[in-house]
Amino acid sequence: MRTEITRLPEKSSNDRAELDRLLDTSIVGHIGLVRPDGSPAVVPTAIARVGERVLIHGSTGSVWMRAVAAGGPVCLTVTAVDGLVVARSAFESSVHYRSAVLFGTCTRLDGPEKDAALDAITEHLLPGRVTEVRRPTGRELAATLVLALPITEWSLKVSDGWPDDPDEDVAGEAWAGVLPVLPCSYGTERPAPDLRPGIPVPRSVARLRSQ
Amino acid sequence: MRTEITRLPEKSSNDRAELDRLLDTSIVGHIGLVRPDGSPAVVPTAIARVGERVLIHGSTGSVWMRAVAAGGPVCLTVTAVDGLVVARSAFESSVHYRSAVLFGTCTRLDGPEKDAALDAITEHLLPGRVTEVRRPTGRELAATLVLALPITEWSLKVSDGWPDDPDEDVAGEAWAGVLPVLPCSYGTERPAPDLRPGIPVPRSVARLRSQ
Repeated sequence: MRTEITRLPEKSSNDRAELDRLLDTSIVGHIGLVRPDGSPAVVPTAIARVGERVLIHGSTGSVWMRAVAAGGPVCLTVTAVDGLVVARSAFESSVHYRSAVLFGTCTRLDGPEKDAALDAITEHLLPGRVTEVRRPTGRELAATLVLALPITEWSLKVSDGWPDDPDEDVAGEAWAGVLPVLPCSYGTERPAPDLRPGIPVPRSVARLRSQ
Repeated sequence: MRTEITRLPEKSSNDRAELDRLLDTSIVGHIGLVRPDGSPAVVPTAIARVGERVLIHGSTGSVWMRAVAAGGPVCLTVTAVDGLVVARSAFESSVHYRSAVLFGTCTRLDGPEKDAALDAITEHLLPGRVTEVRRPTGRELAATLVLALPITEWSLKVSDGWPDDPDEDVAGEAWAGVLPVLPCSYGTERPAPDLRPGIPVPRSVARLRSQ
């Protein structure tokens, strides 16, 4: 009985396409690791899915990137908030969300695989950008760690239902419904102060901004 | 030398007011905990700051809420993505973000403190809603865990600078600037299918939607 009343209006999904949709439309995930003292740390990081794995990258000087690269267990969680569920009671009110949780360990990428992964990360954030900029230098590549987390052990939770109020609340005077959170959008691009005159806004930026 | 080239254009902030601004404008954070097998888990959860602590809540039936309530170390991370930093190279490109990381252990709230905390959580998600709905029942309160994480051990990172391209790239043909991510906004509310006729949209929803 108690689990019934306390169960949140969310469902687990095994839909891999829905997982990919969430990952592919998200810029940032939160990766959890266990620190040497046994306590957890959660760090935001840019993500990009390529096939059967999620790529992350960072500086070789980053303590947490080095810790993750060492192969300890991690958890990568990617969440989108889609709306507020406004029920007739505070208790039944909640949030519409989709959340992917991936467990595993990361593998370090090197060589051509690393180059391709960095391109994929750039393209994920700003489609079309790779062909607008020069290639990374050897020094830049050496300063960057690229890690891959396989999409093997994962779960997806989706909360997208209507308020589930008991009959006595439905009969009352309180409103109920959903207030959608609109997908994030981009504002007008701001050129860098040191941008040389005559350089136009690139197609990648114009395209993303107008979406 | 290597740390210089690899340092991201982000800065740590000790500005408590800026921390509070981030927490107070965020709906969801990601809480990390260590599972019994020693691996990390990261779970999205609604947050609400009240004074010197961040409140979270969930079902008494939730495995992770019970684990957090047991007093193990946690890490709560709250992140806002503010824009894309479009540099003249992929290497210097990055994301504008603000990220708060809080470490500590949670305390379980009970009695009047728990009631007040649940009201604060409701008001954080939808200001004004508490006076529009009935009070929680004893059964609902018993089914809900409310935990508080003190704001004592925390850090705030803010990335908000311009692209930091080397002179040879500035002299080139690539564009550079920032593409702002607009703050999330709400769409038009959708009434629940079982909403009785004649019940108007409440002030709380109308106010949040028009923001």
